[in-house]
Amino acid sequence: MKVIIVGGVAGGASCAARLRRLDEKAEIIMLERGPYVSYANCGLPYHIGGVIEKESSLLVASEATFRDQFAIDVRTRCEVVGISATKKTVELKNHVTGEVTVESYDKLVLSPGAAPIRPPLPGIDLPGIFSVRTIPDARDINAWISRHDLPDYSETGFQAVTKPKRAVVVGGGFIGLEMAENLVHLGLEVTIVEMLDQVMPPLDPEMARLVERHLEKHDVRLALNDAVAGFNQTENGSLEVLTKSGKAHPAEIVIMAIGVRPETGMAKMAGLTIGERGGIRVDEQMRTSNPDIFAVGDAVEVKDFVTGEWSLIPLAGPANRQGRIVADIIAGRSSRFRGTQGTSICLVFEAAVASTGISEKVLARLGDKDFEKIYLYPNSHAGYYPGARLLAIKVIYRKSDGRLLGAQVLGQDGVTKRIDSFAMAIQMGCTIYDLEEAELCYAPPFGSAKDPVNFAGMVAADVVRGDMPLCHWGSVDGGFFLDVRNPEELAVESVPGATNIPLPNLRERLGEIPRDREILVICRSGQRAYYATRILLQNGFKARNISGGMLSRSHLAVGWK
Amino acid sequence: MKVIIVGGVAGGASCAARLRRLDEKAEIIMLERGPYVSYANCGLPYHIGGVIEKESSLLVASEATFRDQFAIDVRTRCEVVGISATKKTVELKNHVTGEVTVESYDKLVLSPGAAPIRPPLPGIDLPGIFSVRTIPDARDINAWISRHDLPDYSETGFQAVTKPKRAVVVGGGFIGLEMAENLVHLGLEVTIVEMLDQVMPPLDPEMARLVERHLEKHDVRLALNDAVAGFNQTENGSLEVLTKSGKAHPAEIVIMAIGVRPETGMAKMAGLTIGERGGIRVDEQMRTSNPDIFAVGDAVEVKDFVTGEWSLIPLAGPANRQGRIVADIIAGRSSRFRGTQGTSICLVFEAAVASTGISEKVLARLGDKDFEKIYLYPNSHAGYYPGARLLAIKVIYRKSDGRLLGAQVLGQDGVTKRIDSFAMAIQMGCTIYDLEEAELCYAPPFGSAKDPVNFAGMVAADVVRGDMPLCHWGSVDGGFFLDVRNPEELAVESVPGATNIPLPNLRERLGEIPRDREILVICRSGQRAYYATRILLQNGFKARNISGGMLSRSHLAVGWK
Repeated sequence: MKVIIVGGVAGGASCAARLRRLDEKAEIIMLERGPYVSYANCGLPYHIGGVIEKESSLLVASEATFRDQFAIDVRTRCEVVGISATKKTVELKNHVTGEVTVESYDKLVLSPGAAPIRPPLPGIDLPGIFSVRTIPDARDINAWISRHDLPDYSETGFQAVTKPKRAVVVGGGFIGLEMAENLVHLGLEVTIVEMLDQVMPPLDPEMARLVERHLEKHDVRLALNDAVAGFNQTENGSLEVLTKSGKAHPAEIVIMAIGVRPETGMAKMAGLTIGERGGIRVDEQMRTSNPDIFAVGDAVEVKDFVTGEWSLIPLAGPANRQGRIVADIIAGRSSRFRGTQGTSICLVFEAAVASTGISEKVLARLGDKDFEKIYLYPNSHAGYYPGARLLAIKVIYRKSDGRLLGAQVLGQDGVTKRIDSFAMAIQMGCTIYDLEEAELCYAPPFGSAKDPVNFAGMVAADVVRGDMPLCHWGSVDGGFFLDVRNPEELAVESVPGATNIPLPNLRERLGEIPRDREILVICRSGQRAYYATRILLQNGFKARNISGGMLSRSHLAVGWK
Repeated sequence: MKVIIVGGVAGGASCAARLRRLDEKAEIIMLERGPYVSYANCGLPYHIGGVIEKESSLLVASEATFRDQFAIDVRTRCEVVGISATKKTVELKNHVTGEVTVESYDKLVLSPGAAPIRPPLPGIDLPGIFSVRTIPDARDINAWISRHDLPDYSETGFQAVTKPKRAVVVGGGFIGLEMAENLVHLGLEVTIVEMLDQVMPPLDPEMARLVERHLEKHDVRLALNDAVAGFNQTENGSLEVLTKSGKAHPAEIVIMAIGVRPETGMAKMAGLTIGERGGIRVDEQMRTSNPDIFAVGDAVEVKDFVTGEWSLIPLAGPANRQGRIVADIIAGRSSRFRGTQGTSICLVFEAAVASTGISEKVLARLGDKDFEKIYLYPNSHAGYYPGARLLAIKVIYRKSDGRLLGAQVLGQDGVTKRIDSFAMAIQMGCTIYDLEEAELCYAPPFGSAKDPVNFAGMVAADVVRGDMPLCHWGSVDGGFFLDVRNPEELAVESVPGATNIPLPNLRERLGEIPRDREILVICRSGQRAYYATRILLQNGFKARNISGGMLSRSHLAVGWK
């Protein structure tokens, strides 16, 4: 058995190591176009920002490790320049010697990854415009930042060579936000230019609003809803990022982070089927349209576990699992990839932004209306123990059967505890009733006796059981706004036109509330409004709780509808 | 409908609030023997230690809140002194006025909690010996510590009144450890006296070893395997804690934290069935042997979800859920308590000690041998990102079908993320194969592309599939010890009699390894030993990996067998 694995990071490296463990006798060749195998590309923004000081820290496993521990024939700086699926051969070019050789294979595994998208915009090739994919990319960015660390000659009339002070990050996804934060830490003024009307595409826009405000609080400027039209070099050597709306954002460094595109060049050479999303099409065993060729990682389309749709999920976790699965299949074992649910997290200035499962905007795209959503803002741990912070949570579930569909969790403490509980729940087909009953760890420094996950289940179940009719800021109109907070809370922020009856006085003041209109109940987070809604419903009023109360208002009112 | 709820904390308070939400018309009386309802008893050790500065922070919801928001007739300092289950009445004593009255009920809910065990040892009533259950207890402890904050008169020959310098905590469970830590923070020398041979009873002893070493590192003295025989007051006014082994531990303050006993006085008055574990016996609806009397919280026995056994689980999470369930049942809804899986966590000097599901010692007690266990020590997040710490994880699963039975996770970072994933997995009946496939959140600051939970699933699956025969330090004897670490690692710590062949040289040195004996393979954490085991097995050797490698050795070799 001779196996050639193309790509030595994440999926490819996992496949190679696992295959050797399963089969001491297989001949395994692992090819990598770049200079390094198994490096931590997820760490690149942090290396650029100096958080990860040494470049060598990013080298998770060396060529020598693969060679000595796994007896794998590793060849770096080696690119596949031709594939014959009929002859079962690949043509390899050694970029050091220039030599081209041919290798035959029994099984071929493609793990080429995805390339940063670099649209052919005017000026895209100007010096100072970078992508962040490889260790050499990071090295180039670091060099660009430090080689400009020279006296400013601009007053002399010479071409200015100033230390970059301003950065534009094009794209507000994971890498865009990580780069923005790291560049701010390096002392740069950072502007994010994003074509969409939100950052962090896995989130729904109203949740992204919270991230956007957090970024702005940390001096990141946002230019949303505006696409880049081109780049310009000014007289003093700086760059300008020109946008479709006619703006010019000055910068000494530009980071392109508008996403990645599956590398399908090899797949096309081999005549493999490419899916509708532009990735290599594979089955549950990660087998391509050619039974002797497998593909894994960012280059393939995978099934979304929740929607059943084909999707591109360029994440390290699924890539690693896929590599492992291919090794199992090649070694003659049964294994399958169950699909992905898109669980992800991103650090944004000491806050964590995480999601799992399906978002409301994807449901909207699918035309699926059998869902409900709730917003809640519980403490990350017992409020009486120091350091508790509010979490912002959105939970989406199927109205008809209560099945959990998706969750988005933002906060500065305790986010991973909750998102992973939700992720495991989605994997196992949990309902909101299961969330009510979840027994998660609790002690005052870590949680609450009713964990936010339980709390989400309880709120959702109250809605499904009809105990708490719900509405959302983005879609309320008409109705009688009843604010049940205390007067001192209204002084801080209030809703124009709302009538204030504090919850403790509600029972005795029911006579002041109209019976011919729907009552929309408001409090800070939705909890007291729930109590009030219960009182109103049981007294014959028609009432709905505004989900998440005032805490939802600012981002929901302007957000997704 | 008139409902009397006895006990205004956790279960009782949850029941009262939920019942009001479901039924505006019910007459609800909530009685509390002590001065406060709904206070955070979980926070008491931290209030004593000054972490939670204000006593008022512990009052989660006041009497007024229950009265005004929930229209509940709250009566504090009011004790039930008689119950007639036939007449459906309770006799109440008001501890302020001394008045005794009788109230009838339609439904009675008992939430009396559990009392700290105070065995009738000689000297148990000496001043300076405290339990930690209520706010007045905390106040007494604080007063004791501060009223001793006076000049030391001992040299004058007068009765010394010295500021406590030494504390003995009797009991090494949750409250014992939390108190020990908080007293250390207050500057006291702390000794924990524990009857068992381990602290933290939910853990298996070998995992508790790690906690014990951590405590010792923080200057807590441990006297395990030794029960208290009595207490003595010395001439200078200090105390001595006398143990069965004949030791005398001097102290100026003693905290009794040897566990709690269900308060079943009222249940006995009402003639209710008490279970074999000494708690009130209830059904899935939390109904006692009398259909009009319910019981919740620390006073009841609940079914262990994993073992099916009756057990006492004095935890706030289940108590709150039970209160809610009783409210549902009284309001005519269907609901049931699914049992408990004992998920718990404790902060111990900036480390978290957590467990969920069943432990090995419980399996041993049940005579259940259909299980396997693994130990692993993964990084809390990507090793190349600053701040990663080793986690110590033990996972127990059913050998026959791979079902996850229990997990114990210790560490200084990322513990909640993993224990809650395991907890949710156990709730949903996950197998180790589901853990392999779990899609948990990953970014370098928060996890790894293969999360420790995935890693646990992969290791366990390798064992079940026969790819990695396993053994454990506590039970290895005979065999050929093969250490595959690098020589420089052996210089730090090595296993006497083990042969060293570094993994990279193993294939070429197979001739040095005997074929007539079982090879027991060692490395630092078990990972390289796994690779070596695979090489050996495929070359016809009989080999087993020592689970967790050198990291397991020190605590496993002396631990559970």
